Amino acid sequence: MSENPIDDLLRHPVSFLDDSGPDGDIAISSRIRLARNVAGHPFPPAASPSEREELCEEVTAAVAGIRVLGGPGAACFSPGTMSDLDCRILLERRLASKEFFARKPGTRLFVCPQEACSLMVNEEDQIRLQVIRPGLQLESVWREIDVLDDELGKVLEFAFDDRLGYLTSCPTNVGTGMRVSVMLHLPALVLAKQIAPTIHGIGKLHMAVRGIFGEGTENLGCLFQISNQSTLGESENRIIGNLDRVIKQLINCEKLVRREILEHRRTYLLDYVGRAYGLLKYSYTLSEKEALNSLSGLRLGADLGLFQDIDIKKVNALFVEISPAHLQKRAGLELSSEACNEFRAAYCREKLRQSA
Amino acid sequence: MSENPIDDLLRHPVSFLDDSGPDGDIAISSRIRLARNVAGHPFPPAASPSEREELCEEVTAAVAGIRVLGGPGAACFSPGTMSDLDCRILLERRLASKEFFARKPGTRLFVCPQEACSLMVNEEDQIRLQVIRPGLQLESVWREIDVLDDELGKVLEFAFDDRLGYLTSCPTNVGTGMRVSVMLHLPALVLAKQIAPTIHGIGKLHMAVRGIFGEGTENLGCLFQISNQSTLGESENRIIGNLDRVIKQLINCEKLVRREILEHRRTYLLDYVGRAYGLLKYSYTLSEKEALNSLSGLRLGADLGLFQDIDIKKVNALFVEISPAHLQKRAGLELSSEACNEFRAAYCREKLRQSA
Repeated sequence: MSENPIDDLLRHPVSFLDDSGPDGDIAISSRIRLARNVAGHPFPPAASPSEREELCEEVTAAVAGIRVLGGPGAACFSPGTMSDLDCRILLERRLASKEFFARKPGTRLFVCPQEACSLMVNEEDQIRLQVIRPGLQLESVWREIDVLDDELGKVLEFAFDDRLGYLTSCPTNVGTGMRVSVMLHLPALVLAKQIAPTIHGIGKLHMAVRGIFGEGTENLGCLFQISNQSTLGESENRIIGNLDRVIKQLINCEKLVRREILEHRRTYLLDYVGRAYGLLKYSYTLSEKEALNSLSGLRLGADLGLFQDIDIKKVNALFVEISPAHLQKRAGLELSSEACNEFRAAYCREKLRQSA
Repeated sequence: MSENPIDDLLRHPVSFLDDSGPDGDIAISSRIRLARNVAGHPFPPAASPSEREELCEEVTAAVAGIRVLGGPGAACFSPGTMSDLDCRILLERRLASKEFFARKPGTRLFVCPQEACSLMVNEEDQIRLQVIRPGLQLESVWREIDVLDDELGKVLEFAFDDRLGYLTSCPTNVGTGMRVSVMLHLPALVLAKQIAPTIHGIGKLHMAVRGIFGEGTENLGCLFQISNQSTLGESENRIIGNLDRVIKQLINCEKLVRREILEHRRTYLLDYVGRAYGLLKYSYTLSEKEALNSLSGLRLGADLGLFQDIDIKKVNALFVEISPAHLQKRAGLELSSEACNEFRAAYCREKLRQSA
């Protein structure tokens, strides 16, 4: 391990983007997080810095006994002592949330070696446990996080009400405290202008659709996070089963439209994909939005077999690597927005040269 | 010669685009045309088809004695017997005008082997003689057309008034009957948003600025035709001298701005050029406008030494070859606008692969 554990993270691509999971051509990642609080401690929004610090120590002691999060190779981050840039790296890798960094002193983040499991202390809730894996595999992610939750529950007494279930800071999380989300790449539905009615339909099923960077963010790169909205009155298995069913329908729908476009609008598709590739390969300034949308086009092309000599894992890794903080860490200096766009273009050109 | 002389034309690129002329990086071509009428014959707008046909025969007999236009390798076209598509080929190669084809029976076009000299019979005037050469070389073009004019004048009696000069159908051509125009590629002035005031300034000097396809056409591919507006009361040498001086100023201006952009906005320039190249290389549908603008970007990049392995002559030839009629002749069939855009993209991709 190096002095700054952020540098260790940056040494390998985000593992949930490694395209190895089931239905990986459309389902980017499956993620479950559990919200937990420890009985007898005030919830973070009401806790003083010293109370939060105290809780951090208690959770750190508990985590030390759990191999995945406290064992060799795992990392521990204390945002209070970290630079803004380093915090944004954790954000861009989906290991932490904006809310987490808004309350810096008395917070902590534990990350397992491959980043699949992580635990935030004193985000909105005292404990936010997360497991994220490539592809659509909610069942196995659930088994994994359930084991971690049980292990933690043996050493920490969670705030629990027999009638309501797990107690949380925000009432929308009370009950299971669980948020299940799947990130989908839906370029064909976007191209065929079927995404708006699709999102509308999902909303009616009490599921939420969000952009790549969570709540309130724009759809970029045709990436959508679909997640459950209710946490109360349903078992974890039922929530997961419902979401899994909807996601599978969405995947089938995207596959169908991909085939349709490939068959009936082949030139349109080739043009869309080709222009995306040309932009990544030859532009000298690229905004994050343009880069994500171009990567989306390139990935669609690769999924459809139009770029057989392109290393799709390198393309996937770019989805995170072209984020501003990642680029600045790589450049080794703070970059203005303009300089960042130039560095992003140079980075994409270089990566595409390597992978072509 | 093949059965259809249009096929002979299509066998070689348009010679005025061969980039061999003086100041060829900015001045695409120098062109002079003379309007002449034969005494004792009605002007074309007032002539009947049989009167026009009669004149065609007279001019054909005269041309037969002029080596350049009537000798071996020269071609003669009779629009009345030609397909629309073939007529549009002549238009796209700048050998004829829209007005010429509006009056089909009783018109004729003579073209010398390399297309530098041509003569339309019964356009707006009975005779429209044209010489076009690459680069900025108005003096030599003038000497060339002056010789042809003299040769013709020996066998045909031109309508001439001692006070007014040559008589023409439209009063704006009376006098010298001469239109001198230079086609300039001015991408830097366009990029630096200095083209509008520049055009405004040229207008004040009684010169006209037009797009690539003549009067009333949009600026495409940053190509501009600058020409004299008055034909009366000035000698040919003075008209040419004035235009030459203005063109040289414009060329210097464009060169200056190119250097400025290359020095101070290098990334912007590289991005502009790179995106143009990417579009030509990877798109699967390209409108004529997009193709011309991209070719302009690529040519600018090549002029500035950013594409040392690209054959600039192939790029130049594309400026004409991507025109709709040329593409349809090459495809061997009539193409819908959509199919034409697809064929254009395929043609550009192929040419860029060959020249890279």
